[in-house]
Amino acid sequence: MTISVPLGFRFAGVHAGIKKNPGKEDLTLVHCEHGAVAAGTYTTNLVHAAPVVVDRGRTPSSDIRAVIVNSGNANACTGERGLADAREMTRLAAEAVGAKENQALVMSTGVIGQFLPMDKIAAGAAAAAKQLGTNETAFLAAARGILTTDKGVKVAGRTLELDGAAIRIAGMCKGAGMIGPKMATMLCVVTTDATLTPEAAQTVLSVAVEDSFNCISVEGHMSTNDTVLLLASGEAKKEPLSGKDLAAFQSALNELCVELARQIPDDGEGASHLITIEVRGCNTRDDARRIARTIADSALVKTAIAGGDPNWGRIVSAAGYAGVEFNPAGVDLAINGCSLYERGAPVAFDAKTVSASIKASRETMVVLSLREGTAAIRFWTSDLNAEYVRFNADYTT
Amino acid sequence: MTISVPLGFRFAGVHAGIKKNPGKEDLTLVHCEHGAVAAGTYTTNLVHAAPVVVDRGRTPSSDIRAVIVNSGNANACTGERGLADAREMTRLAAEAVGAKENQALVMSTGVIGQFLPMDKIAAGAAAAAKQLGTNETAFLAAARGILTTDKGVKVAGRTLELDGAAIRIAGMCKGAGMIGPKMATMLCVVTTDATLTPEAAQTVLSVAVEDSFNCISVEGHMSTNDTVLLLASGEAKKEPLSGKDLAAFQSALNELCVELARQIPDDGEGASHLITIEVRGCNTRDDARRIARTIADSALVKTAIAGGDPNWGRIVSAAGYAGVEFNPAGVDLAINGCSLYERGAPVAFDAKTVSASIKASRETMVVLSLREGTAAIRFWTSDLNAEYVRFNADYTT
Repeated sequence: MTISVPLGFRFAGVHAGIKKNPGKEDLTLVHCEHGAVAAGTYTTNLVHAAPVVVDRGRTPSSDIRAVIVNSGNANACTGERGLADAREMTRLAAEAVGAKENQALVMSTGVIGQFLPMDKIAAGAAAAAKQLGTNETAFLAAARGILTTDKGVKVAGRTLELDGAAIRIAGMCKGAGMIGPKMATMLCVVTTDATLTPEAAQTVLSVAVEDSFNCISVEGHMSTNDTVLLLASGEAKKEPLSGKDLAAFQSALNELCVELARQIPDDGEGASHLITIEVRGCNTRDDARRIARTIADSALVKTAIAGGDPNWGRIVSAAGYAGVEFNPAGVDLAINGCSLYERGAPVAFDAKTVSASIKASRETMVVLSLREGTAAIRFWTSDLNAEYVRFNADYTT
Repeated sequence: MTISVPLGFRFAGVHAGIKKNPGKEDLTLVHCEHGAVAAGTYTTNLVHAAPVVVDRGRTPSSDIRAVIVNSGNANACTGERGLADAREMTRLAAEAVGAKENQALVMSTGVIGQFLPMDKIAAGAAAAAKQLGTNETAFLAAARGILTTDKGVKVAGRTLELDGAAIRIAGMCKGAGMIGPKMATMLCVVTTDATLTPEAAQTVLSVAVEDSFNCISVEGHMSTNDTVLLLASGEAKKEPLSGKDLAAFQSALNELCVELARQIPDDGEGASHLITIEVRGCNTRDDARRIARTIADSALVKTAIAGGDPNWGRIVSAAGYAGVEFNPAGVDLAINGCSLYERGAPVAFDAKTVSASIKASRETMVVLSLREGTAAIRFWTSDLNAEYVRFNADYTT
């Protein structure tokens, strides 16, 4: 894996002491000296964490200089003091790089309901500022600093030629997929050296998130902290992207976000399958997404795939309670390319062959087709096995 | 446990050969010689089984003579042939007791997507008709005939004095709680010797189901077959119940349905806790139910209780994504009587004591209070542990 770091950004990841293990980075700093255009998308949970409140108020922006992220503590459900702590984190980050408080953004992930150790955050921010670097090594240290129980860094990069200039996009995210003990909080920072207006940045990010991070689910429990940030330094090419260049950028950003998002359900000690659920033939994409999410969130579907069991009745019946109107007699279902159900009736198939195909591959492909319209979506989730339960049954005590 | 069997009904449960184990009853017949008023409530899943289609078309009714139930095969996702089979089941049941096809109802539970062995059903219906009895032994045999993976029968009875006459209500239900491999299909038959008009029967049943069977969840996967039937023979007292007598009957029926419904999440090899989720202080009961259901369906909440972990952040954050508007700063949470969270902020509490109280009891009480209104609801679910996953990972293959 080689990530081309976008021009104009510096990265650092350090151990500030929020996590107990001294070998683990737990504080990340991103610096954009000349200011980046920034856009964000956030959790829609009514109960959301303090950093989400702060960032929501500061994006979109035309001049963000720093992003500070800590892992090990979510700063969620911490009331007024938590909000003050989140603001103080942005002040500390800004101070460390010579910027103003409202030019900084903040993200946190970890345990809910505990106050941040602000002394450690302050020392960590200062230490991180001294280690800021522009190469891939610095980028990867920053990518480690945002992790919780993730098995390893989740990063992706793209380079594209737009009107004669090389444009780089590099993203890092975290999300403790299957084992999601911190409610699978999903954080992501995407940096690019393209020039974008704040409005364009917000639009391309929202579009990309809709078909990537909004199309994954681990156990359907929406986090208090979910945040995706896009930062554009404009260092590669001065004119803001528009027209077909913006479309090409959108396309590359979509791909990059899908590549990052898929890594979330694919991760986790427990997960033995990454399940792709494709729902076709719907009236709207929203209908397709709703059906796909209902299938993805069914514990009975997830346990069946874990066991290599082509139990199509669980999939079809989950579609039936998704809250979307459709004709059950028009439904087809295939798993790994093998048709199990056509026009609402069972099809004779070799259960052993399908079971073997599920067991043989880490990825399982489920395709549910309706005959209502032409809208389709892809959704990703992980399976559910005993390891997940063991991990989640005893987290805070 | 002693159940007073309502007058006017006869019961039988036999082994028809749908289940392989010859010691297990798999066909139940209920007979009401002089005709019962009958009401039903059914799954709202778009993908619903053939018997649901048949019963929905025949209830409410003023003259039902027979109910036939088989376990071991759900007759769901079986298309036109399944519908013909369900109708044929009612014809066989009616024939066995000397009634007409449209005077019979049918329920099925078991594997999805396989056709019923109609020869076995026919022989079983005839055999059951010969064994019909009016005592508790016959009632319990019928209660066994509707079970799938349930650990034992789920029955409840009430006797009440209304205007000088004894009225009996007796119910049986099935639902493979935590282990729900057949998607926790829930079937229930409640019989009474009270006299009810068809309209009153439908009303009291719908009211009772709303606060009982519609307030339980195992893994949130809605079955294709869920059915609750109420049959009233009118043998105890000839005049239809009305006024305060009807209210007293409603109250007894509510209690009985809650007693039956709670047994469903309480059952299952895997379930180590029956969790009662009480949500108070909402604007509407529907708001309260939606929040309670979202908490109940969170795998992270369920695994935490399984592990004796008072992880209140998971509960509060689940409430936050239930789709109900409320002020997060007005939320209180208590587990087993210990306050963990008040007015949207953490409270110092002894985690070890709360953890010990969860571990010491089969029942866990979660009370979430908002400050929006006065509506409240109780909802029941089971915890989620490794045993559940093992059971569900390999069912059809």
